[in-house]
Amino acid sequence: MSTSNNNSERSRPLCMIPGPVEMSDTVLKANSTPATAHTDPVFSEAFGQVIEKLRTVVGTKDGQPFVIAGSGTLGWDQTAANLVEEGENVLVLSNGYFGEGLADCMETYGAQVTCLRAEPGKRQPLAEIAQALRAKKYKLVTVTQVDTSTGVLADVKGVADLVKEHSPETLVVVDGVCATAAERLYFDQWGVDVVVTASQKALGSPPGISVVVASQKALSVLAARKTRVPAYYVNWNRWLPIMKSYEARAPKYFATPCVQAIFALNTSLTEILSSSMEKVFAAHEQTAARVRAAVNKWELSTVATAPELCSNAMTAVWLPETIKAADLLPKLKARGVVAAGGILSGKAHRYFRLGHMGISATRDNGFVDATLRAVAEALEECGHGAAAAATGRSSPPRL
Amino acid sequence: MSTSNNNSERSRPLCMIPGPVEMSDTVLKANSTPATAHTDPVFSEAFGQVIEKLRTVVGTKDGQPFVIAGSGTLGWDQTAANLVEEGENVLVLSNGYFGEGLADCMETYGAQVTCLRAEPGKRQPLAEIAQALRAKKYKLVTVTQVDTSTGVLADVKGVADLVKEHSPETLVVVDGVCATAAERLYFDQWGVDVVVTASQKALGSPPGISVVVASQKALSVLAARKTRVPAYYVNWNRWLPIMKSYEARAPKYFATPCVQAIFALNTSLTEILSSSMEKVFAAHEQTAARVRAAVNKWELSTVATAPELCSNAMTAVWLPETIKAADLLPKLKARGVVAAGGILSGKAHRYFRLGHMGISATRDNGFVDATLRAVAEALEECGHGAAAAATGRSSPPRL
Repeated sequence: MSTSNNNSERSRPLCMIPGPVEMSDTVLKANSTPATAHTDPVFSEAFGQVIEKLRTVVGTKDGQPFVIAGSGTLGWDQTAANLVEEGENVLVLSNGYFGEGLADCMETYGAQVTCLRAEPGKRQPLAEIAQALRAKKYKLVTVTQVDTSTGVLADVKGVADLVKEHSPETLVVVDGVCATAAERLYFDQWGVDVVVTASQKALGSPPGISVVVASQKALSVLAARKTRVPAYYVNWNRWLPIMKSYEARAPKYFATPCVQAIFALNTSLTEILSSSMEKVFAAHEQTAARVRAAVNKWELSTVATAPELCSNAMTAVWLPETIKAADLLPKLKARGVVAAGGILSGKAHRYFRLGHMGISATRDNGFVDATLRAVAEALEECGHGAAAAATGRSSPPRL
Repeated sequence: MSTSNNNSERSRPLCMIPGPVEMSDTVLKANSTPATAHTDPVFSEAFGQVIEKLRTVVGTKDGQPFVIAGSGTLGWDQTAANLVEEGENVLVLSNGYFGEGLADCMETYGAQVTCLRAEPGKRQPLAEIAQALRAKKYKLVTVTQVDTSTGVLADVKGVADLVKEHSPETLVVVDGVCATAAERLYFDQWGVDVVVTASQKALGSPPGISVVVASQKALSVLAARKTRVPAYYVNWNRWLPIMKSYEARAPKYFATPCVQAIFALNTSLTEILSSSMEKVFAAHEQTAARVRAAVNKWELSTVATAPELCSNAMTAVWLPETIKAADLLPKLKARGVVAAGGILSGKAHRYFRLGHMGISATRDNGFVDATLRAVAEALEECGHGAAAAATGRSSPPRL
């Protein structure tokens, strides 16, 4: 891992929400590349590299990356519009807000959705998923690897193994928006068919690019459709020649690519792969363990109800009953750290969320330590005594 | 107009294609803003300003801007998915490649498309459009204000007037991707219902934002739909509360906005509106006139067959029979100017295209003069004598 500190401008607060996340100065500089034609060889080279590097990041030899201007959400549309036909069955494993959104998107494109919902902080037992797979034939099963609303880590390998066992023709779709390049994923080895992600999380770039990787099996499902793809912009049949052409370093036009954002993404991918994915995953695991140790010291609980359910990309933390997220967050910001409140309906004010992915996890920049110190102090200021103890202070809570 | 020169890095070539176009250093700097939460008040302020400023740019009091991560093409999906229901009639006025694309997108969302095609370099006579409007009831009529494939300027006011006269309930949709903020458009005054544009043309920002402005009439058509919107990401029902919230400077989530790109767009909109739209339009008209004068001196013809058909944002120029675009463009690039070849099917190598919008048109930075000099020299090097005369050289062509 690089030991360089990042972001020379330290007058601004650290952005420690679960995405967008802190970016390296090099990535930011690439995002301000002067006007460059989307047909320029310099750009074709960068775009081609992005496509190749994304394969390495998710662990596939022949998966097909789609790199399209849009937000992470657009990846849901890509998946639903290309791989689902009217009336087909989709099994959605929902661990929170983003699982629900994905189910909603699938229904928009005509899917008959069966949604297995876990209680907040938990994930579906594999036995329940196996039962669902045996009960009905599904075109695809979706799993949100990390639901940003709860910080719960899904068992993608477990799900993929069950699909192989009970319904091998079903496509395995992973929403990796808050996971890819932070959580372990071995696309080919595990038998994943689609990973949906975005530029602004562990990929370490500004928001604005929808990144999807599709297996050859998924593309063959697209090719075998009985009905036309019911969308224009996200139609992979239009993008496939574009991605193949840019990978061959030749420009081809469907819609104008986001040139600066792709230069930035290429830069962040270079930085990520300057290490190995194994080291990147390990760094996220070590960082997440430090965050969880701090949560323990504060005598608070993660929303994820067990260590193996805790994401390595982010952590959601229940607050003491006396403290609301709206009390804590301004005190954190006053200490130079921006964290996020909750988003679970009815429980949003009861917890807060920290992102610890990308350079905050992989580099020795002190971002996470500064964040943990700031949280401890802010909790103390809110009257939570254990936090004081955690930072070595024995003074009683002020309130 | 500002007289500042832009882009300190002059070692790179000028990007004089019809988009993406040259950007100011200030815009590029804004695009490298360090990580900022999409819930940060600083970002809400920028996003709110973008929404307000876009109204001024297109000339509307109560039109509703949608500012969504994506390319200009995504605006076609926005329009089709929200405003057209299965089987409804749409009249597409096609002046080239992009008119055809828009027709294709409309059909994807179930429209019954009638396409009035003009010959390359021309636009449909108003009488023909009037006849079409009398012959059938259309849900909407689309007009590509400048078709980037030909540089032909449509008569948007003429079309809108005809719609008012013959079919006032029909929505007027303008594809302004290569026009907005360069060509005159008076949204409220002319009775336009939708303008589709993008960040990377005369709006002077990097590519990556789909910008649409919809009239209240268009929104009432959306509200009166009999069927659900058949898409998720581009569903205005999901975005409307987001846009209203950010305009009130309060963050609200549907999909992560492209934070850096929106900071950049806010900066370029500030620069555009530091003048008045009238002055901005006039500057584009004056610049385009200089380009056309040069084309005349070169004894070449614009693809647009008459002066009133020539766009003020870009110019497409037929090459002499002896010169192909692939001959000219490298010689231009060797002189520090990147232009574009043609894209009309079967005629692509027979012409080249120059963009002259945004800061190239509105600022005294010499970009257009440098471009015209480079073209004259490159034409001469290709053996075209008149070009030599244009730059005051009497030496005979080298070939």
